[in-house]
Amino acid sequence: MYIDKDRLWETLETHARIGGTPDGGVCREALTAEDKAGRDCFVAWCREAGLEVAYDKICTIYATRPGRDDSLAPLAFGSHLDTQPTGGKYDGILGVLGGLEVMRALNDKQVVTDRPLVLIDWTNEEGSRFVPSMLASGIYSGIFSYEDMLRATDARGMTLGEAADASGYKGSEEIGARSFHALLELHIEQGPVLESRGVEIGVVTGSHGMSWSHVTINGKSSHAGTTPMPYRLDAMGAMARLVGIAHNVANAVPDACATVGSIVTIPSTYNTIPHTVRFTLDMRHPDDATLQAMLARFEDACAAERARGFAVKREEFGATPAQKFAPACVAAVRKAAAAAGYTHCDIASGAGHDCVYVNRVCDVGMIFVPCKDGISHNPRESITREQAAAGAEVLYRAVLELSRA
Amino acid sequence: MYIDKDRLWETLETHARIGGTPDGGVCREALTAEDKAGRDCFVAWCREAGLEVAYDKICTIYATRPGRDDSLAPLAFGSHLDTQPTGGKYDGILGVLGGLEVMRALNDKQVVTDRPLVLIDWTNEEGSRFVPSMLASGIYSGIFSYEDMLRATDARGMTLGEAADASGYKGSEEIGARSFHALLELHIEQGPVLESRGVEIGVVTGSHGMSWSHVTINGKSSHAGTTPMPYRLDAMGAMARLVGIAHNVANAVPDACATVGSIVTIPSTYNTIPHTVRFTLDMRHPDDATLQAMLARFEDACAAERARGFAVKREEFGATPAQKFAPACVAAVRKAAAAAGYTHCDIASGAGHDCVYVNRVCDVGMIFVPCKDGISHNPRESITREQAAAGAEVLYRAVLELSRA
Repeated sequence: MYIDKDRLWETLETHARIGGTPDGGVCREALTAEDKAGRDCFVAWCREAGLEVAYDKICTIYATRPGRDDSLAPLAFGSHLDTQPTGGKYDGILGVLGGLEVMRALNDKQVVTDRPLVLIDWTNEEGSRFVPSMLASGIYSGIFSYEDMLRATDARGMTLGEAADASGYKGSEEIGARSFHALLELHIEQGPVLESRGVEIGVVTGSHGMSWSHVTINGKSSHAGTTPMPYRLDAMGAMARLVGIAHNVANAVPDACATVGSIVTIPSTYNTIPHTVRFTLDMRHPDDATLQAMLARFEDACAAERARGFAVKREEFGATPAQKFAPACVAAVRKAAAAAGYTHCDIASGAGHDCVYVNRVCDVGMIFVPCKDGISHNPRESITREQAAAGAEVLYRAVLELSRA
Repeated sequence: MYIDKDRLWETLETHARIGGTPDGGVCREALTAEDKAGRDCFVAWCREAGLEVAYDKICTIYATRPGRDDSLAPLAFGSHLDTQPTGGKYDGILGVLGGLEVMRALNDKQVVTDRPLVLIDWTNEEGSRFVPSMLASGIYSGIFSYEDMLRATDARGMTLGEAADASGYKGSEEIGARSFHALLELHIEQGPVLESRGVEIGVVTGSHGMSWSHVTINGKSSHAGTTPMPYRLDAMGAMARLVGIAHNVANAVPDACATVGSIVTIPSTYNTIPHTVRFTLDMRHPDDATLQAMLARFEDACAAERARGFAVKREEFGATPAQKFAPACVAAVRKAAAAAGYTHCDIASGAGHDCVYVNRVCDVGMIFVPCKDGISHNPRESITREQAAAGAEVLYRAVLELSRA
């Protein structure tokens, strides 16, 4: 093993005390005092490791290790140090501090890479304090406008612009000013697949296409006692059928997901048949054409409800295309996992990550490690010392591979 | 025809101006100034018709026409003059003013019945100002305690006791002090059955048994993107299956109803699988044993969800047994409808009515007339002059029949 397993674990444990909560979690929302303390610690460690630290105008941190030829595009890796308000110790943090361990291990072995290496801490990945999530990497990738994002406001009415000014981490560098040869991100899976398959490393091939809709069904309100069943146009019945079909559509397609997370009924009393039921539909698949075919099958079911007399409307309020990661990055991760002797499998990310956005402007690759019971965004988020080390070791080897001229 | 169709219609239209709303509805909640004005008008008409008016301690009005033998138990008929806040012109009112028309028609023809006749306006049938509904008839029937009901409070914090004191209609007569030979009630159907069958009179044979439950499903919350379908324990899916089964159970049993009126999901975001879904279940059938069998079939479906790994709990928060009305009363209504030449059919009441409560302590019968589109508790509640007259005519004939010694 090239990396130092115990040093990495000690680094993770030490950093987790910053914003640490009594239940074993971490509360370190973006650009708060806790986030500043977490950044201060990280930057001090970077400087101890000889890295040159810079910040851009949205407070993203870039810590550079020189290469043999600094005219070559740098290889970047990293993730984010901010957490959910009831977050864990590893979501994002493993990618940043695992990256720091890679830098330290390269120093130990006095390795000089062809390309310069840049370790990144993206600002406001979580989106819990300032909506949207993956805010800095989204600006970097041209998805969000910097000026719009500065006006994002937290629950206490403070804008992100004000929080950035107060953070001490606002630099003068334009966001997106630096280009990279590629970007790697080590992250916990945040799902149950690797653990349940007993696999040590997930080689991430891309991310799911996603579609979010509101579905509104209008039937006819009437009295629960005086309206015999054959006279009803009960929006609740149409909802039950459509929820069942959404789940069945996803169950029938490998790697598909369908989630109905929220339902509103109007009126909402026990003895009145509701005239309106509205629910959310979240559908995902790693292939956009398959996702569209799933949505078409759901639309067929909506049409069947219209034929029964209901008004049914599906309004998409958000969508994001599937991402295929660069074959060279995916291959480098797969090769690194194999060379290090870890069991591994391909996996598509069902969640958003900084790399998923940056994939639009730069080659990216991701490494997943299992987390206990798939639990994340929760103080119970948990990985072992060995799982953390495996992720950092694969990152080290992939960095060596991809940093060659 | 014994009754005066136009006089009845004029009476209904005149009274509907008291608390009348611009959209053609009536707002005359129990023991408000509008209800008092409606009572004042009704009592003046009763006195013009020679009736002796009395009130009991919950402000129910009893207007008596002497019989040939006042030692015989009186025959009573009536309903309620209070309305929902967005009520119509006929719900309850037709039963009271149709009863007044019966008294007037008997006077016109100088009929003397064997038994005395009592026309009743029950207090707070609607339950919109003071919960519960059918409050006065419920006390009369021994279902509610008078002392408890006096503490019922409206939205502005006024108790029913205070409202009764201020109404001018609180008498000293004990509630339930008078017994009746039988009680008849004319009412709009508040459902679509008679209209859609083209039937003029519904001969009410009794009322549905009813059961109200909260059903709570606990599954496992997880991320909508990182949790593949086979790893989910999605409470929304269990809900969709159980709602479908509740409807199917009712669809398979003649005269059964099942309604899911309200759903709550926790958490309620589009991209999280909810761990908890809670919904209301309203089940009804005219036969209690059949209702219990329906609930048992629903419980089987709950057990099937438990076998899938969900926790499922059904908690009944209310129930009321089915009522069979007295054969003599049902027969008198049926005979009256036939003799008057109206098409008629038997029907069970799916809603509560004053008569449904009083059936526990006294023989009762009910007469339904169709209402347009089955709409009630709504300014669009509508019946024709002919439908009102048919109801009052059947009431007149049934009163003649049942008032015989």
